[in-house]
Amino acid sequence: MEKVGLTSKFASFSDHWSPKIVGELNGQHVKVVKFVGEFVWHHHDHEDEMFLVVKGQFRMEFRDKTVTLNEGEFIIVPRKIEHKPVADRECYVMLFEPASTLNTGNVVNERTLKELKRI
Amino acid sequence: MEKVGLTSKFASFSDHWSPKIVGELNGQHVKVVKFVGEFVWHHHDHEDEMFLVVKGQFRMEFRDKTVTLNEGEFIIVPRKIEHKPVADRECYVMLFEPASTLNTGNVVNERTLKELKRI
Repeated sequence: MEKVGLTSKFASFSDHWSPKIVGELNGQHVKVVKFVGEFVWHHHDHEDEMFLVVKGQFRMEFRDKTVTLNEGEFIIVPRKIEHKPVADRECYVMLFEPASTLNTGNVVNERTLKELKRI
Repeated sequence: MEKVGLTSKFASFSDHWSPKIVGELNGQHVKVVKFVGEFVWHHHDHEDEMFLVVKGQFRMEFRDKTVTLNEGEFIIVPRKIEHKPVADRECYVMLFEPASTLNTGNVVNERTLKELKRI
């Protein structure tokens, strides 16, 4: 049982759209990820996802609306709901989601990551 | 799908050791709680718990060590491990744990809360 510092975790990598596992509990993963630019439209058939902004701002686009999230704000995206995160500038995000969650959900393409690094 | 702001959630209550539910996903609850003083020794038989410091500092006491957590740091306490949070000054904490989790775990006393408020 060691504590985990978000600042040092974010300082330890620089790639984007590549979530890193920083914790695991009850079959769920805690991940950190840096966003910049646009991701892809996707949904998850079986997993709800939580996005908490640690630094910066990003927009979560849905088919019928857009939600802008700032530092200290989170959103829970229910399973089956299509979404696309977009960040005009680099944004640091903490994710909570089941260990089974694939970053691109139902879409498998060059941005899909099947093995996530633990940091 | 509305965003949730931690600052406004923490501003909306003032009691201590009384977690409020601010989100739910995959059978897990996201809660916010204010600590001050000492809680009780307890463990959870079936639930791992995550404590993330949003503001301030607290100590997680274990039977064999103490971990001091500052803003932006978290710890995951595995099921069955006895622990006692202590905060010398008021501390704001976000919790992530299964929906079944009772605040005092295996101990049921005057600090046990069976029905948590959703805010």
